[in-house]
Amino acid sequence: MKKKSLPLSDVYRLLEPGPVVLLSTHYKGVEDVMTMSWHTMLDFEPPLIGCVVSNRDYSFNLLKGSKQCVINIPTVELSKMIVGCGNTSGKEVDKFKKFKITRSAASKVKAPLIDDCFANLECQVVDMKMANKYNFFVLKVVKAWIDARSAQSKNPATLHHRGKGIFMVAGESIKLPSKMK
Amino acid sequence: MKKKSLPLSDVYRLLEPGPVVLLSTHYKGVEDVMTMSWHTMLDFEPPLIGCVVSNRDYSFNLLKGSKQCVINIPTVELSKMIVGCGNTSGKEVDKFKKFKITRSAASKVKAPLIDDCFANLECQVVDMKMANKYNFFVLKVVKAWIDARSAQSKNPATLHHRGKGIFMVAGESIKLPSKMK
Repeated sequence: MKKKSLPLSDVYRLLEPGPVVLLSTHYKGVEDVMTMSWHTMLDFEPPLIGCVVSNRDYSFNLLKGSKQCVINIPTVELSKMIVGCGNTSGKEVDKFKKFKITRSAASKVKAPLIDDCFANLECQVVDMKMANKYNFFVLKVVKAWIDARSAQSKNPATLHHRGKGIFMVAGESIKLPSKMK
Repeated sequence: MKKKSLPLSDVYRLLEPGPVVLLSTHYKGVEDVMTMSWHTMLDFEPPLIGCVVSNRDYSFNLLKGSKQCVINIPTVELSKMIVGCGNTSGKEVDKFKKFKITRSAASKVKAPLIDDCFANLECQVVDMKMANKYNFFVLKVVKAWIDARSAQSKNPATLHHRGKGIFMVAGESIKLPSKMK
């Protein structure tokens, strides 16, 4: 999938709807990817994101050590990858190999971009004050990429976790007379 | 709409998909309601939620002063209420009156339950350490309510904000072999 640069001011439009994402990390030669659903925007521009990565997750130490990651946004076509990465631990398997996940080098961080995801957000960890108490990390997006076939990514069929194996697939989009940014 | 008690262990299943919500507050006789989309789960049980309420919002001081609120979850049928509450400020209008929002008394907080929302989460503010820097509040859900017609609320047509007046309406639910809670 060919990607193009996405203006940082548009990043919130990808995460605010609440999709399940894949968080990729790289630390001292080790890479991991985990399924993540607990995240929120904290600011528009530069885009700040808050997310929960549990200290029981293998990615926790990679994120804490490298202070970098990529948030990759998948659609329903990647269900197997999403579920597979959520059901396994990087402690035991190389998920990239097991789930045949192809990756590319990012431009500003060492964590990899997952090719098949329609959007990739390169992030720096900018605040870990809530990491011990809440497993909560504050990330700043430093570079964003999106599927170059823009029509394809305008109304992406993202997955939204309802718990216990139930996922809502993003439905139709409607235009409302909202003045919200 | 008749409501029944929802176990606190099920609360994350309502918010994790990322719906637009209505935050209601009450402080010293003043009530307000605002549209909110920047929130995340922080823990399962007791359910902890992190959310952004801007210091430019009228609700900010009500939330900070009372340390209480209700998160009300609307569906697409309430679009007018959602957009109306997002486009106006409690500084200028009584939104309950303007948008004919009927409310009921909550059981554990002073902020009101919005009747027409299919779920209501009574919350206490438990951490404001990130309120100054990120407008970020940590809430603990102390009581949860859901539409008593449970089938109705199993696959709710929530709205998910894509920015600039575009809202995704929750689509179909699918079951995947996920071991995620």
